[in-house]
Amino acid sequence: MPMGKNDELESLRHQVRDVTAQIMRNVQQRMELAKQIGEIKSRLGIDVKDEKVEHDIHVMVLSLADQMGMGRDFALQLLNILLSESEQVQAQKRLQKGQKQTHMGIFLKAKQLEASGKKIIHMEVGEPDYPPPAAAGNSLAESFRLKQYHYTDTRGTPKLRSALAKKEHVYEDQVMVTPGGRFAVFSAITSLLKAGQELIVIEPAWPAYKECADFIGARTKVLRTTIEGKWAPDLKQLEEMVNPGTKMIALNYPNNPTGKVLDGKTMERIVSIAKDNGLYLLSDEVYADYAFKKFASVHEYGYDRSIMVSSFSKRYAMTGFRVGYAVAAKDVIDRMAKVQAVGITSVAEPMQHAALAALGEDPSENVRTMKKRLDFVCGKLKEMSLRFLEPDGAMYVYPELPSGEDILLVEKLLEKGVAIAPGSGFGDYYRQFVRISACQPEKTLEKGLDVMASVIRERA
Amino acid sequence: MPMGKNDELESLRHQVRDVTAQIMRNVQQRMELAKQIGEIKSRLGIDVKDEKVEHDIHVMVLSLADQMGMGRDFALQLLNILLSESEQVQAQKRLQKGQKQTHMGIFLKAKQLEASGKKIIHMEVGEPDYPPPAAAGNSLAESFRLKQYHYTDTRGTPKLRSALAKKEHVYEDQVMVTPGGRFAVFSAITSLLKAGQELIVIEPAWPAYKECADFIGARTKVLRTTIEGKWAPDLKQLEEMVNPGTKMIALNYPNNPTGKVLDGKTMERIVSIAKDNGLYLLSDEVYADYAFKKFASVHEYGYDRSIMVSSFSKRYAMTGFRVGYAVAAKDVIDRMAKVQAVGITSVAEPMQHAALAALGEDPSENVRTMKKRLDFVCGKLKEMSLRFLEPDGAMYVYPELPSGEDILLVEKLLEKGVAIAPGSGFGDYYRQFVRISACQPEKTLEKGLDVMASVIRERA
Repeated sequence: MPMGKNDELESLRHQVRDVTAQIMRNVQQRMELAKQIGEIKSRLGIDVKDEKVEHDIHVMVLSLADQMGMGRDFALQLLNILLSESEQVQAQKRLQKGQKQTHMGIFLKAKQLEASGKKIIHMEVGEPDYPPPAAAGNSLAESFRLKQYHYTDTRGTPKLRSALAKKEHVYEDQVMVTPGGRFAVFSAITSLLKAGQELIVIEPAWPAYKECADFIGARTKVLRTTIEGKWAPDLKQLEEMVNPGTKMIALNYPNNPTGKVLDGKTMERIVSIAKDNGLYLLSDEVYADYAFKKFASVHEYGYDRSIMVSSFSKRYAMTGFRVGYAVAAKDVIDRMAKVQAVGITSVAEPMQHAALAALGEDPSENVRTMKKRLDFVCGKLKEMSLRFLEPDGAMYVYPELPSGEDILLVEKLLEKGVAIAPGSGFGDYYRQFVRISACQPEKTLEKGLDVMASVIRERA
Repeated sequence: MPMGKNDELESLRHQVRDVTAQIMRNVQQRMELAKQIGEIKSRLGIDVKDEKVEHDIHVMVLSLADQMGMGRDFALQLLNILLSESEQVQAQKRLQKGQKQTHMGIFLKAKQLEASGKKIIHMEVGEPDYPPPAAAGNSLAESFRLKQYHYTDTRGTPKLRSALAKKEHVYEDQVMVTPGGRFAVFSAITSLLKAGQELIVIEPAWPAYKECADFIGARTKVLRTTIEGKWAPDLKQLEEMVNPGTKMIALNYPNNPTGKVLDGKTMERIVSIAKDNGLYLLSDEVYADYAFKKFASVHEYGYDRSIMVSSFSKRYAMTGFRVGYAVAAKDVIDRMAKVQAVGITSVAEPMQHAALAALGEDPSENVRTMKKRLDFVCGKLKEMSLRFLEPDGAMYVYPELPSGEDILLVEKLLEKGVAIAPGSGFGDYYRQFVRISACQPEKTLEKGLDVMASVIRERA
């Protein structure tokens, strides 16, 4: 073989091996240092993650990369695996917390209990009990007659995309139909972020944003909001959280679980923070129809790096049809479409046909029903003397418990046939909250809430 | 702040910064060496990827990791980003090849041409023209009547899973329903491999395996098969390709695009290679019904790390329903279900209901039709004096072109209203092949193949 004889090549390969070994030794040394830091932090009771230190090291790494002519993306990727491993080493013995329980986990448990014959009141899941539009139902048989059961364009059937573009006042190439809003979030986060880059999530929030970031090794930074602060994000803090590795802010308004809607001024400032730092702004607006005060979609702010996510699930109670969509600039949709092509080819055509049929229907009756139910839930929670903010929108109320951990109450209630969602499913810091979904008739909600009241009284 | 005053912590943090900078300098040095190696290789005309050198460095890194007490997964992840970046640096100027064109790309182009009024003969896509079972059609309206339009268990409705478990002679917790076979492949690869670990693919093959590995930063090693070798994999070569970073072998039989079916002895040896090395064996068997010689599913070989992927798309011509499934050990299904929960929540319930209705139907008429069409295509290709192997199964023929690149012929034919798939979509080394899909009636196939024959004659 010619290469075996090439001394230069052999010598270079030796050098590569040596420098690889040197890198590993240094990395190991770094881990040892991280471990020592972890031990000291543990003694001092300091959080493992330190935003300031992390920010500084990002700045150093990027400036060093620039100096050496190393690609910034690559440098961040390298830094990320070092940081992630350090955190793990630091946190190893301290964090013995069990598997996090989310509303979906409780829902699946409740479904299993039902399958075994137990009656369950579902106040854990965001699945309205009222039916989808009849037009959607009628379209199902029609889709078969019309032979609409083939692969479609990855981004959706031309008809549905065109109808959505018209509804959203954008071009067709700015729209992609997805299997539920969830896959729109998934494809946005996984196509726009790389391993090591950062996503900022304002909590409490639907857990999917963090899950998607975790999935590709991106990092999630959490901006915590509080009930005392009326669930409004501290924008100064938001601004300070952005570092050179930050790529996206995820917004989730009307918020799941709190029902918060941001005012226009706050949205403008968030958009301007995103613009100043070249960040993507992912706005999950699946509850937009259920806004009981003025709500403007992110794409009314005219920012070309915003991605709006919507869905047929909540608006039309079509959860099981699994049809959602994203609206963004063409180049962003192009990137998201690649993820969709790799993962699922295209959305089931009969489901797209049903979504198109539903699109002409008026959801305002659903919205009125939901508002009435939320008012009812709020009244009951007041009777229980629980602290909460009346929701500006969405389908949930997020009360604080007087004592004890969310998960204990959730499990106790499940035993009694009432499913609610643990608050900590929406952020680690919310173990004293629970989420009540108002997707059942008032009579059912009343029964469930009465059981909840009596269990809370017993625990007091 | 207390930590500012802690000198020990400050000193450790300084050391972390210094060692981080040192790591980066070494990494940069490694890149420079890689670049020099790339230049020499370029001069000598050697491939950028060198399996032997790569294998050696894997062994070195893992043994060093063991010595130092560094986690093996972490060490491989680190090595991977170094290797990937080196390859990119080496290949940067040499590989100027355009975007790879796959059968799906041609399909979407053809669809666009159709939308603009052009008539297209579809011999590029694996979508049978015969209809799905009437039972599946009838079930659609029924699903609405029965209110089967809700979120379901992530793994599928209890009824469908139970029916699939019965069909496949496994337990229910060994089955997961997915939105198409593609998502079963996606969730298997992305849940079982980490960034830096390796997947072996036997090419030519459906491109999805490599795409899914790319998606999470896993590496794909290609075992090339040839028409001269009757598309059979060289098992000695397969064995030699396995290194400590290898985690999975992807099988795709009956093969898309060649139609090859492996004999039992070959399968046994592959299973034993997987077993000896603790590898997952992903067996994509969506064409199993269309096997014209004896075919045994991977799970008949009793290997607990095998994952069988199947689908309703080809068997029942239900492509647009997007229902597939995976069969594997419970712990594997558990991991795959996590990906499904993050990406899509659950499969559309009306589509699962339709799949259940179809499951009782007999697909043998479809299989007879396909066999007849494939024979017809083979006859026509013989008339053109093209070299190919008669398919043992699936829905395609994969002939070799007498001259010229696949993509030139494909584009020429598309201009003339005939869509076929470029061979290189199934592996970089197959630019002299094309794939003909037999999913149209013989008359249509005849027209398309006549156009192909005349274009090839002109080019000769």
